[in-house]
Amino acid sequence: MKTITMDLTNALAEAVGANGIDAGELATTLANISDYYARLLAKPFAFMTLPETKFQFDEMWTLADKAAAMDIKNLVILGIGGSSLGTQTIFEALLHPLHNMEERFRNGKPRYFILDNIDPHKMAAIVETIIPDIDRTFLVVISKSGETPETISQFMLFNELMRRSPGYQQRIVLITDREKGLLNRIAEKEGYPTLNLPDGVGGRFSVLTPVGLFPSALMGLDIKRLSAGAAGMAAHTVRYDGEENMAFVLAAILYLMDRAGKKIHVVMPYCERLGGFADWFRQLEAESLGKKGLGPTPTKSMGVTDQHSQLQLYVEGPKDKCVILFYSATQEVPIPASFDYLEDVQYLANKDMKSLFHAEFQGTRLSLTEAQTPNISLILDEVSDYNLGALFYLFEMVTAIMGHLLSVNAFDQPGVEQGKIYTKAMMGKKGLEKEKEHTEALLLRRAKTIVF
Amino acid sequence: MKTITMDLTNALAEAVGANGIDAGELATTLANISDYYARLLAKPFAFMTLPETKFQFDEMWTLADKAAAMDIKNLVILGIGGSSLGTQTIFEALLHPLHNMEERFRNGKPRYFILDNIDPHKMAAIVETIIPDIDRTFLVVISKSGETPETISQFMLFNELMRRSPGYQQRIVLITDREKGLLNRIAEKEGYPTLNLPDGVGGRFSVLTPVGLFPSALMGLDIKRLSAGAAGMAAHTVRYDGEENMAFVLAAILYLMDRAGKKIHVVMPYCERLGGFADWFRQLEAESLGKKGLGPTPTKSMGVTDQHSQLQLYVEGPKDKCVILFYSATQEVPIPASFDYLEDVQYLANKDMKSLFHAEFQGTRLSLTEAQTPNISLILDEVSDYNLGALFYLFEMVTAIMGHLLSVNAFDQPGVEQGKIYTKAMMGKKGLEKEKEHTEALLLRRAKTIVF
Repeated sequence: MKTITMDLTNALAEAVGANGIDAGELATTLANISDYYARLLAKPFAFMTLPETKFQFDEMWTLADKAAAMDIKNLVILGIGGSSLGTQTIFEALLHPLHNMEERFRNGKPRYFILDNIDPHKMAAIVETIIPDIDRTFLVVISKSGETPETISQFMLFNELMRRSPGYQQRIVLITDREKGLLNRIAEKEGYPTLNLPDGVGGRFSVLTPVGLFPSALMGLDIKRLSAGAAGMAAHTVRYDGEENMAFVLAAILYLMDRAGKKIHVVMPYCERLGGFADWFRQLEAESLGKKGLGPTPTKSMGVTDQHSQLQLYVEGPKDKCVILFYSATQEVPIPASFDYLEDVQYLANKDMKSLFHAEFQGTRLSLTEAQTPNISLILDEVSDYNLGALFYLFEMVTAIMGHLLSVNAFDQPGVEQGKIYTKAMMGKKGLEKEKEHTEALLLRRAKTIVF
Repeated sequence: MKTITMDLTNALAEAVGANGIDAGELATTLANISDYYARLLAKPFAFMTLPETKFQFDEMWTLADKAAAMDIKNLVILGIGGSSLGTQTIFEALLHPLHNMEERFRNGKPRYFILDNIDPHKMAAIVETIIPDIDRTFLVVISKSGETPETISQFMLFNELMRRSPGYQQRIVLITDREKGLLNRIAEKEGYPTLNLPDGVGGRFSVLTPVGLFPSALMGLDIKRLSAGAAGMAAHTVRYDGEENMAFVLAAILYLMDRAGKKIHVVMPYCERLGGFADWFRQLEAESLGKKGLGPTPTKSMGVTDQHSQLQLYVEGPKDKCVILFYSATQEVPIPASFDYLEDVQYLANKDMKSLFHAEFQGTRLSLTEAQTPNISLILDEVSDYNLGALFYLFEMVTAIMGHLLSVNAFDQPGVEQGKIYTKAMMGKKGLEKEKEHTEALLLRRAKTIVF
């Protein structure tokens, strides 16, 4: 099988000089990773076991089958960060690009609304859209801790909306930690079914649990194939070592780039369907590695669009970047002959958009390389459930390995706790009176402002 | 009037210590800018004169009035980079968030499709959507040079599609350079009306020309108010000096941050409607300043969503960032009392989403500041046409001033020319045979790959 090809030529010193990876350093880092991985296999991280355990697949299928019999028009998903990015990624990659816009693209599936923000303007718009069909709306509420104020406040709102319609208890599913948390208490009291995150799997590593897979099953996507792709990549990672191991090499390159001051990782898919994947990885890398003053900054660019926005900077700006390109295109869209009186455009006539898209991808790789900006390409034979599952596992593994190399705990996020406490304090949560005073004092400091 | 308030407190050394701006340096930089601006006023950049000249407003209204009489269902805009980002920004900010999804949110206006990519999968999907109503489709083609291969190839495709329907010549408008370029020759031959970019205004500074304003006029938006906002900000910039001048202070801070190694500018709107604005500024800053080894890297984050994705990195990661926050919310969405058996969530009951949204914004500012990550906030009283026009002008002025401070030409983009030539060569454009050979040789180099 040859479904994903990683081309690292242009990340090496041979191609991009001093901005590239030195062969000796790469070998040393790979040896370090091999040792680490051998130890890791004896006591794997929880996310590594998911492709094998197929956690709660039967429960998901049972609930999804019930839903399929219901004539659902709107699927509403309440979740933020790791609770929404996986689903967003899967839907962007595998559903029709204009799924929500026209019924004929949905094949009887519902429209979907992933509420990953509480911007009241957007919230009001979505509520306005859903209300006429509230009795054909299915609600999935996702929060590992059950305490995320964004998700809980949205749930309070939607719970009251849903209660107006008969049989609403059958159209609400909660996904949360197996034992802890407020969602379990709500489920018990209200009679809503629940699904879980397996022990030890954090939000941003949870795409291959019910968090990402149950919404996918509701949408009729093949969660077995998603899981099989991850299993395939897990097997690759066990089978190969050193230079032949995609996860090891990618982790080594990204780590060495970061260490060499190329601390900006540009994720640039030539493939709109992988835009969600870029956002998903952006969370995974930033939240896992951004601690103790360390950690690369991921940023998303879209090919070809951002050739006309960011490429100038990547070519002639500071050498503080490593560009990770993705490419996939299978669709053909012929460019007809037109404007035959214009010699200057005839090089495009009777070609295909796909060829032009590919030429742009190659043109960008070449011009980055000639400018000595290191770049790596991952080329997918297709954007399939299988390949997507493989990519999820690959980048999770890469992130875990980078955590080891940087000596940071890739599985916590202590830096966001303070902001959460401040928010709750400002909203008047009991027990946070001192914090409320503190925020008020800070906000009352003499501000330096300019007014227009 | 108090429509935009910029709060720079948390960018200063008093708030964030050594990571902040020193008062003396700020004063020196502001003096430099004042001198520069005085000279600039004698010979302003072309974009600075736009709010006054109202270039081709009458021509736009005439064409938009004609279109308004036509019962248009689809507005298709072909353009990329500076040719599309302005329109995208205006539409995201001022139209209903679900404009394209439901007819009742459109008030009789057309759906819109901004084709800023040639991903063939997406292209095919959009063509599929439009074809049934091709005789009610209005096409706007935007390319300053008229030679952008992405836009020209799309135009070849759509030109042939449109020709099947009667009266199609009345439903195509081209926007291009006043004299040069292929689009003018096409317009002449085919009888399509044209609008122009004024001399000296480049793509990324063109939002307040027909490039951004004509699509807005077609959508029934108030281009006079957009222009008035820009005029208001232009007047502010002339009237105030030094510490009282929003453009001067913002440019000075961003420049000093860059010089101090905070080379990543995080643009983080707490306002989904300003997501497009973040993308627009991202192009403006990157393409204007990313040259000669210099230039900050802009990256977009969305509040509150990215608190659960990027904030960990901004708080505990390397001190190489300056965060520019935006905030605006006017809509109220009450959170009803629910789950009365759960004491732990009652702090949210009977509050409003807007209050929670605001508390999150404040919580982020405070936690960034306590972590000594410098941040600036721009608070808008509303997301209006007027405020949006003011923001466009403000950030264009800021970028021009930063170009001066960094000693780079903010108005060219030499770094992307090579990639364009490679693309055309690979597509077989005549006269580029040597370049074609060169690319083929490069692509045949022994590649280092790993296959999954």
